[in-house]
Amino acid sequence: MTDSERQTDEEQAQAEARDSGFELDSTLIEAVEEALERKDAEQLRELIADVHDADVADLVQSLDGDQRRAFVTTIRDDFHPQVLAELDENVRDDVIEVLGLQETAAAISELETDDAVLVLSELDEDEQRRVLEEIPPEDRALIEEGLAYQEDSAGRLMRRELVAVPTFWSVGEIIDYLRQAADQDEDILPHDFHDIFVVDPGHRPVGAVTLSRLLRTRRPVLVTEIMQSEIKVIHTNTDQEDVAFLFRQRDLTSAPVVDDGGRLVGVITIDDVVDVIDEEHEDDIMRLGGVAQDDLYSATIETARSRFTWLLVNLGTAVLASFVIGMFESAIEKIVALAVLMPIVASMGGNAGTQTLTVAVRALATKELTPANAARVISKELLVGIVNGCLFAVTTAVVAWIWFENLGIVVVIALAMIVNLVIAALSGATIPLLLERFGIDPAVASSVFLTTVTDVVGFFAFLGLASLLLL
Amino acid sequence: MTDSERQTDEEQAQAEARDSGFELDSTLIEAVEEALERKDAEQLRELIADVHDADVADLVQSLDGDQRRAFVTTIRDDFHPQVLAELDENVRDDVIEVLGLQETAAAISELETDDAVLVLSELDEDEQRRVLEEIPPEDRALIEEGLAYQEDSAGRLMRRELVAVPTFWSVGEIIDYLRQAADQDEDILPHDFHDIFVVDPGHRPVGAVTLSRLLRTRRPVLVTEIMQSEIKVIHTNTDQEDVAFLFRQRDLTSAPVVDDGGRLVGVITIDDVVDVIDEEHEDDIMRLGGVAQDDLYSATIETARSRFTWLLVNLGTAVLASFVIGMFESAIEKIVALAVLMPIVASMGGNAGTQTLTVAVRALATKELTPANAARVISKELLVGIVNGCLFAVTTAVVAWIWFENLGIVVVIALAMIVNLVIAALSGATIPLLLERFGIDPAVASSVFLTTVTDVVGFFAFLGLASLLLL
Repeated sequence: MTDSERQTDEEQAQAEARDSGFELDSTLIEAVEEALERKDAEQLRELIADVHDADVADLVQSLDGDQRRAFVTTIRDDFHPQVLAELDENVRDDVIEVLGLQETAAAISELETDDAVLVLSELDEDEQRRVLEEIPPEDRALIEEGLAYQEDSAGRLMRRELVAVPTFWSVGEIIDYLRQAADQDEDILPHDFHDIFVVDPGHRPVGAVTLSRLLRTRRPVLVTEIMQSEIKVIHTNTDQEDVAFLFRQRDLTSAPVVDDGGRLVGVITIDDVVDVIDEEHEDDIMRLGGVAQDDLYSATIETARSRFTWLLVNLGTAVLASFVIGMFESAIEKIVALAVLMPIVASMGGNAGTQTLTVAVRALATKELTPANAARVISKELLVGIVNGCLFAVTTAVVAWIWFENLGIVVVIALAMIVNLVIAALSGATIPLLLERFGIDPAVASSVFLTTVTDVVGFFAFLGLASLLLL
Repeated sequence: MTDSERQTDEEQAQAEARDSGFELDSTLIEAVEEALERKDAEQLRELIADVHDADVADLVQSLDGDQRRAFVTTIRDDFHPQVLAELDENVRDDVIEVLGLQETAAAISELETDDAVLVLSELDEDEQRRVLEEIPPEDRALIEEGLAYQEDSAGRLMRRELVAVPTFWSVGEIIDYLRQAADQDEDILPHDFHDIFVVDPGHRPVGAVTLSRLLRTRRPVLVTEIMQSEIKVIHTNTDQEDVAFLFRQRDLTSAPVVDDGGRLVGVITIDDVVDVIDEEHEDDIMRLGGVAQDDLYSATIETARSRFTWLLVNLGTAVLASFVIGMFESAIEKIVALAVLMPIVASMGGNAGTQTLTVAVRALATKELTPANAARVISKELLVGIVNGCLFAVTTAVVAWIWFENLGIVVVIALAMIVNLVIAALSGATIPLLLERFGIDPAVASSVFLTTVTDVVGFFAFLGLASLLLL
């Protein structure tokens, strides 16, 4: 490929990237960086004037620390509160530092309650208290109520702004109410909503009407005639993972939240649930990869420290595996080929086990793997382990034969491979189930247990069989 | 813990599981299995009469193959078409086999177009053709149009049923139209919708109005006065990942889809996007774990076969690593401690690299890692690698000293650890970026490349340094 061809390819790729048009335009980032260097505040304001808040947040995230602070300092008067809610936690800390407590408090009190609670909950206790003091009392009360709910609970996730109507209203009355409320003060109604909830005199939800149903019904019809009365009600203490599960299962766009007395206190909407789903998935991926949390925007030292813990645990298991090898030093001294081949058995076990583990951890997360079908899943994985164990016993035996032309070694590696792949399949399926049973997140700890088992069994089976059969 | 205590714990755990109340009740599964065993059709029908379609799908999935077929055979007359759309692909094949082509076709034609297209697209070509022949012509045309769009494109994802109004209509006219359409025939309107689209005479979308906005506006107001005219329009060819990104970024509940001529042809709703998000995440997790696709419901042989390929690739890399060890056979023969310690260096490199890799793959998927900040992310990871490399050089040196009391070995393992953790950090960050650059999904291939690098470098650095310094 000549240089000019390569360039054309590059240009094409860039054009394609632009075409989808949904992600942040890289030319915008460059223009912003340039304006920052020239300290051209007016140019900067012009550049981001029509950019969506979520994209401004992405832009702030893509700048480095110094640029980020310069950017926020420059546009502080035009800073949209919603940008704060869209930022990654680490980057938000930076921004809040530049804005100062007073401006942060002003921004937070303009957000809807769920976003305000989210932003505040991620500040440390001292900052939280000081920001709250700056927020007007009526907003503060609602936010403090939200903060009082447990982390990751429906109470934290819900928005307080909602539309509830009594059972005796007609469609016409609801429409008139909405129009009047909109005329008087837009703060009475939520900015956007999907369902209207019907409540009894005790403010307990008895039904829900989608707006599309309401719109196609004639004015005199009573709301109780068109409402769906079989609604799933979420308690403020319900875990957000269960909320996400319910939304997915029922294709909901919003759901009512009630307190201990069964009174309607808030509503959870699908956009917040999508964030929960993303967060859950991120947690699963990160934990399986041995990272405590997404640290893309964390400082170097903080990142190194948080990853250190996990690596230390892994060092422990690696040393354990080495102890097993150490038990067979004399065998290795006599047949050095054992040292050459032994990592193959351990590595194949680790990989096969990880396959099973991944499927099991994912199925537990989606509630598809349950005590009811656990036995069936384990038996299937065991069978898969036996089948692939036998296949790789043959494959590896061929490789070992070509390499060392020693029948004894061939037999040993084939047998060890079968043993380790079967144990890997069993451990990959049972370790996550056991952890879940004891209330430990299987995504966090499964892989370290698994590799310990497959390394120890892999080395022990191979070297042990060799000592038994070859010496 | 005594047996009775354990039982109480179990009962409590079960009670808690029931409490959240959203997932499938395990007592229901047991009752269904019992009814199936007794072949009590009436009891079975009663049990599932009030169960939501999505839960019936989960129930069908949790049964084993024979029970599943018996279940579908028994309730075939009461089988809700929507259950078909909620099933896992492998399980759906089972169900369709029992239902037969004619009943499947009847069920599919009762689904909304997006679900019908989804179900049909997962059948093999021959089945697809035969089912389509059984579907009434008017439904068939729409479904065939949907199937003509590329897999994973917006065209496949969209629903054809939508509400579009001309620019000159008022709020009152829209409401009257909806009420009349509802009176005449419910099939004109979608079952549920969130936005009304405003189109020009060429049927090109020029704006959108949320239903909550429409409901609080008085009748004489023109739709053009309240519509949002800055709408993101999705092309039928847009990849579903880009669609999901847009929905998340903008907190959308629905978005218009246009054809090449810019004409409004469909709408994508948030519930379908949530499915895409789940699918994407599942793909990422599975691929990172070396599984081609979620095979929880696949047959044993199929599962073994699909996992075999990945393990074979891994065998290749393991053999490559063994070759590296083989280069240093004479060193190992002289100092057998090298064989004992060498897996520690390789294993720590693999784990540290996987941490970096996980963060990078995830950041690429969320479009947070871009060419614009790649250099910064790589430098940071490099620094993290150096910091943790030095820390673990010391830690491992201490372990090696306690074990072998040999200063030479201590120096070698410490140096090798630094080299391998630095290389691991660099590879973990650059491999996914390079793969993405060449249009390969980084989740699929990154980890095999990474472990090859960390194994080869780990063994080579440790054994090579040992040969150089100790022999």
